[in-house]
Amino acid sequence: MNNSIGNIYRLTSFGESHGPAIGGVIDGMPAGVAIDTDELQRQLDRRRPGQSDITTPRKEADRVKLLSGIFEGVTTGTSIGFIVENSDQHSSDYDNMRHLFRPSHADYTYTAKYGLRDHRGGGRSSARETIARVVAGSLARQALAPAGITISAYTSRIGDIAIDRPYSELDLSLTETNAVRCPDPEKAAAMTELVRTIRNEGDTIGGIVSCVIKGCPAGLGDPVFGKLQARLASAMLGINAAKGFDYGMGFDCAGMRGSQAADLFTTRKDDGAIHTLTNNSGGIQGGISNGMDIYFRVAFKPVATLLTEIPTVDDRGLPVTLKARGRHDPCVLPRAVPIVEAMASMVIFDTLLANRCSRI
Amino acid sequence: MNNSIGNIYRLTSFGESHGPAIGGVIDGMPAGVAIDTDELQRQLDRRRPGQSDITTPRKEADRVKLLSGIFEGVTTGTSIGFIVENSDQHSSDYDNMRHLFRPSHADYTYTAKYGLRDHRGGGRSSARETIARVVAGSLARQALAPAGITISAYTSRIGDIAIDRPYSELDLSLTETNAVRCPDPEKAAAMTELVRTIRNEGDTIGGIVSCVIKGCPAGLGDPVFGKLQARLASAMLGINAAKGFDYGMGFDCAGMRGSQAADLFTTRKDDGAIHTLTNNSGGIQGGISNGMDIYFRVAFKPVATLLTEIPTVDDRGLPVTLKARGRHDPCVLPRAVPIVEAMASMVIFDTLLANRCSRI
Amino acid sequence: MNNSIGNIYRLTSFGESHGPAIGGVIDGMPAGVAIDTDELQRQLDRRRPGQSDITTPRKEADRVKLLSGIFEGVTTGTSIGFIVENSDQHSSDYDNMRHLFRPSHADYTYTAKYGLRDHRGGGRSSARETIARVVAGSLARQALAPAGITISAYTSRIGDIAIDRPYSELDLSLTETNAVRCPDPEKAAAMTELVRTIRNEGDTIGGIVSCVIKGCPAGLGDPVFGKLQARLASAMLGINAAKGFDYGMGFDCAGMRGSQAADLFTTRKDDGAIHTLTNNSGGIQGGISNGMDIYFRVAFKPVATLLTEIPTVDDRGLPVTLKARGRHDPCVLPRAVPIVEAMASMVIFDTLLANRCSRI
Amino acid sequence: MNNSIGNIYRLTSFGESHGPAIGGVIDGMPAGVAIDTDELQRQLDRRRPGQSDITTPRKEADRVKLLSGIFEGVTTGTSIGFIVENSDQHSSDYDNMRHLFRPSHADYTYTAKYGLRDHRGGGRSSARETIARVVAGSLARQALAPAGITISAYTSRIGDIAIDRPYSELDLSLTETNAVRCPDPEKAAAMTELVRTIRNEGDTIGGIVSCVIKGCPAGLGDPVFGKLQARLASAMLGINAAKGFDYGMGFDCAGMRGSQAADLFTTRKDDGAIHTLTNNSGGIQGGISNGMDIYFRVAFKPVATLLTEIPTVDDRGLPVTLKARGRHDPCVLPRAVPIVEAMASMVIFDTLLANRCSRI
Repeated sequence: MNNSIGNIYRLTSFGESHGPAIGGVIDGMPAGVAIDTDELQRQLDRRRPGQSDITTPRKEADRVKLLSGIFEGVTTGTSIGFIVENSDQHSSDYDNMRHLFRPSHADYTYTAKYGLRDHRGGGRSSARETIARVVAGSLARQALAPAGITISAYTSRIGDIAIDRPYSELDLSLTETNAVRCPDPEKAAAMTELVRTIRNEGDTIGGIVSCVIKGCPAGLGDPVFGKLQARLASAMLGINAAKGFDYGMGFDCAGMRGSQAADLFTTRKDDGAIHTLTNNSGGIQGGISNGMDIYFRVAFKPVATLLTEIPTVDDRGLPVTLKARGRHDPCVLPRAVPIVEAMASMVIFDTLLANRCSRI
Repeated sequence: MNNSIGNIYRLTSFGESHGPAIGGVIDGMPAGVAIDTDELQRQLDRRRPGQSDITTPRKEADRVKLLSGIFEGVTTGTSIGFIVENSDQHSSDYDNMRHLFRPSHADYTYTAKYGLRDHRGGGRSSARETIARVVAGSLARQALAPAGITISAYTSRIGDIAIDRPYSELDLSLTETNAVRCPDPEKAAAMTELVRTIRNEGDTIGGIVSCVIKGCPAGLGDPVFGKLQARLASAMLGINAAKGFDYGMGFDCAGMRGSQAADLFTTRKDDGAIHTLTNNSGGIQGGISNGMDIYFRVAFKPVATLLTEIPTVDDRGLPVTLKARGRHDPCVLPRAVPIVEAMASMVIFDTLLANRCSRI
Repeated sequence: MNNSIGNIYRLTSFGESHGPAIGGVIDGMPAGVAIDTDELQRQLDRRRPGQSDITTPRKEADRVKLLSGIFEGVTTGTSIGFIVENSDQHSSDYDNMRHLFRPSHADYTYTAKYGLRDHRGGGRSSARETIARVVAGSLARQALAPAGITISAYTSRIGDIAIDRPYSELDLSLTETNAVRCPDPEKAAAMTELVRTIRNEGDTIGGIVSCVIKGCPAGLGDPVFGKLQARLASAMLGINAAKGFDYGMGFDCAGMRGSQAADLFTTRKDDGAIHTLTNNSGGIQGGISNGMDIYFRVAFKPVATLLTEIPTVDDRGLPVTLKARGRHDPCVLPRAVPIVEAMASMVIFDTLLANRCSRI
Repeated sequence: MNNSIGNIYRLTSFGESHGPAIGGVIDGMPAGVAIDTDELQRQLDRRRPGQSDITTPRKEADRVKLLSGIFEGVTTGTSIGFIVENSDQHSSDYDNMRHLFRPSHADYTYTAKYGLRDHRGGGRSSARETIARVVAGSLARQALAPAGITISAYTSRIGDIAIDRPYSELDLSLTETNAVRCPDPEKAAAMTELVRTIRNEGDTIGGIVSCVIKGCPAGLGDPVFGKLQARLASAMLGINAAKGFDYGMGFDCAGMRGSQAADLFTTRKDDGAIHTLTNNSGGIQGGISNGMDIYFRVAFKPVATLLTEIPTVDDRGLPVTLKARGRHDPCVLPRAVPIVEAMASMVIFDTLLANRCSRI
């Protein structure tokens, strides 16, 4: 259970940071989807470290090898196995961590759960694990694209710098034009400057990724435990460092009245389609998409790896001092954007397939 | 999939608001748990409408009938079937809604998905569905209690009135002493007053439920897609009207630095146990419980049913005016508290059982 | 897991023989299926004890109450809860069995697994549990019927009396014309006579049920672990007293050569459809239906309850003598026929729904 | 779903015969199992083609690469990814089959289901897919061994040559001493001779594999849909070419009386343990293991690939003549033995883990 996500379109992933490879198997991809491997690699490149001066300087090629399930460029309906080999591993950077518990990492909890752990580079808890998600998400996105469904995430806040306009007033095509992946150029510049400052101090900083899904038909999601928002929340909280999820009006709803929050229905003049005048619901009502834009946010904590000396304990409970030597991001937000998109793509595609069985 | 939750301890529920009964089947309850049916009924009574002047005046006895899986007061390891009969149904209250789509309800999306719906009382989308959750949650809680695990939710905000102290400074035993289920007596009084005012205006109001889980051992949760926070998020976003979830420092993490957020490890003087000095992690690191209190919040939107006239459309897209005649809560928060506890109980128990297989 | 079957069309059942009711929840039934409750009751009546002089004289009305998921005669896409109340229980018949282990029953293994058991009437291991299967199977069959898919099981062997012609030479409409449910009238008469003799001796007898599924389109089943024959085998071996399953040429294949076993392809003159000249494959190749009749057999052991005195041990391991006082079938075959049909109906419908996702 | 097996110990496999690799991910392996990679490779070698003159002359090294989940020789509790590279592929052998449907193969059904297929070497339907099963089964067996659970399969019949003694009278340590994996030396010699004759005729032959599981504790399996025999049947019928499964007295039960079939309980003199005098139940009662040997059989059809000219049709329905040029086994039985053991190992280990949750 623990390494799989999805019901019909299902990824099962594997791999530790300092093992031979990260990879996975995608089950449930329908036959007949044309796969663009260059586009797949582009998505992996967006996740890759070393893209700019504000991400970790680790250099990983992260070339994906597709091992099955695709024949002459088209999916065959059989499972898709893939691997991305690990490289540029500095395992010795982690020798001093074999018996230490880094604060706010998974070192202690893995040991508590399993009785042992692969301490090198965080092992399975490394962010390299998200490579498998980007592969499965990118293939899902390629299956969704012909249906006109697009998934666009962006950095909406880093530290105290936040976009102060609704997504509908942003030009989302600008997201990829800067290192922080913020579609508001002025905010992007300020965020970049902030991350540089933080990095130079050996510190890290948190933020928020927002995501908009356009073109999603009404009817996706199940009404009780498989609510679309529950599936999205589960996927998003499954990303390392994510601390919160909300959709539509989100946490702001706590201060709102029903008369403010209600999304009134109306009929579109041109084609008679029913839609809502406002979208406080974030495109989901009663757990099911209503055809409006789906909108949600994910909060990310600051990376726990600090480059300053910090006190901790070892696995005997004795006090020790830790000085991290690995190479880390001062802010995960820019690299979290493609991961949020990947997870959302998987959820939407999985739900879209499930919906084929909603009527006889 | 859509009506089941849990992997090992699994509830599958059924029932519409105006059908003969709400019920479910619990699979995976281990043998040997002593069941207190009075305590089970007490939990259902906490969820029940008509408890105070600020909840809906509907009167439902909500007596649970346990149909299997318990023999001479003890679980047998077989599945537990149960029903709660519906009563005090005013189905004719809903006749005018057969062809209407109420704003911010599930009417439109059910019709879009299934092509038809049971319109009476919201059908399957009615909050009565949560009865099954309270039954399964209460039984899980009874299984957890002997292990010293307690789950305490409370209303921490309604509208603009919010508790301004951390949970650790509250006396959670006060939660049940007032109608809004807020453990801060002054805030509780103000919240109650606010809800009365809102109700008298025919309006509704949102809020936040907070939840604390104490006594949870380290090691629960799976590190990748089955992260404990992902399971909690999925369970909480599966509750009607929930719009957001966060845990530990939650959305506040967006403005924090790593040096502020890190939970430093230390060793307890008396027993040498490793724990953290702070708990920004909310009791979960790397997706796995670390033995500290688990702390999370759930945001609830204002109830969508307004008692004023509002414009909407019918299933042909024609404009109509809606005047709700049903009996509804002006604020779901008080009744959401036991549901949040029920969902959390199920998740923790399910994860606790799964953890039995983490080591050979 | 243990009380659920099916992936998309999924039954979760509950209920002990001497508890208040047997029942279940069906999840995944698509919206829009017209339900004939008389037909549903007819299927339950076929399973019911007391139908003839060669079945148990217990009298159970076995009236099903549908509690949800159907509105104005049509499925709504929400889960279908149902119960059948228990009656005519002679619990005191079983008092002497509280501490005994009946040979070849589940008494010992339940106690070994769970540490306790409901001993009355076999508890959960009672054949009454199959009521839930017949309900879910009958609704699946009603969903399959408009697609022209029919499922016909029949008794092909009891003791040494076996039908000696292939199913294609039988008139399956004769199955319901006799008490043993055998479509060969001469064999049926001999079987009936045999069962009467066996019953009079206080003994029981085994046999074989054969099943033919007609009208199943090519393409159902998954090629690796979800092979259609694996799903059918799992469903059939999940029936009490089933000891074996084979399909197509079945166990006879062990003595065959490839040149004998091959089903050669040809093209139908009238419509050009590809089909096979023979059907040793039993309608399934590579785990996927090929459009030919699906044909399989299930072997049932003789009922373990004997009405003679037999030696056994109690739960302390001490020798005791058992004299069963319950009312039991001398031969399960006649009542197994509708259960085999029900299980097959569920498997085929589940697989048919899953197949909607095989192509983009 | 289609490429996964198991609930807690779960294999998800991938790979086509003529793609770059076969592989899989094992999820749910507990931490702390010492892994012997030489033993793992030995099991793969037992499955490998080219072991003797009566198996296919294809030469495949089939070296497994473990990619994750094992650290310093011990499982870590994280998922285990693995691949076995394909080699010695004669893809051009299959060029003439791109548009043909080979009789009794999966060519037609894959095309019917997916609209396209990888025709080279059978693609996903190739027996090479079982490599992944042997890897996962061997690791499960290594986890079971310290608990004293052994799984021994053997060829009990080929064509008309069958072992005529119960397994308890055989010396199972002789199974690996001959090419057909039959523990009865005389029968083994006759079987070998038969297979040689069949091979020289360009024909193939079917048979039966029997399997005995010793040391399995009482209590494994779930009583309703997860019966141990249902899990075994599903696993066995998921093997290519398997046509039937039975356990204990199996299909012979059809001719038996209850008084013959009952396994009487008794108490062992030395330790007071309850067991049965006979084992017609095959070690499983009420779906749950009873501590006796588990015994079952699997029937395998003759390989469908014949080396003579046979008529068939192409994908337009036109008649063509097929002359297979691939290299194939005249009899799958010898190589099926380790696969049956692998599947049984997975089922028993999965069930053993699940049983940890049967009591509080």
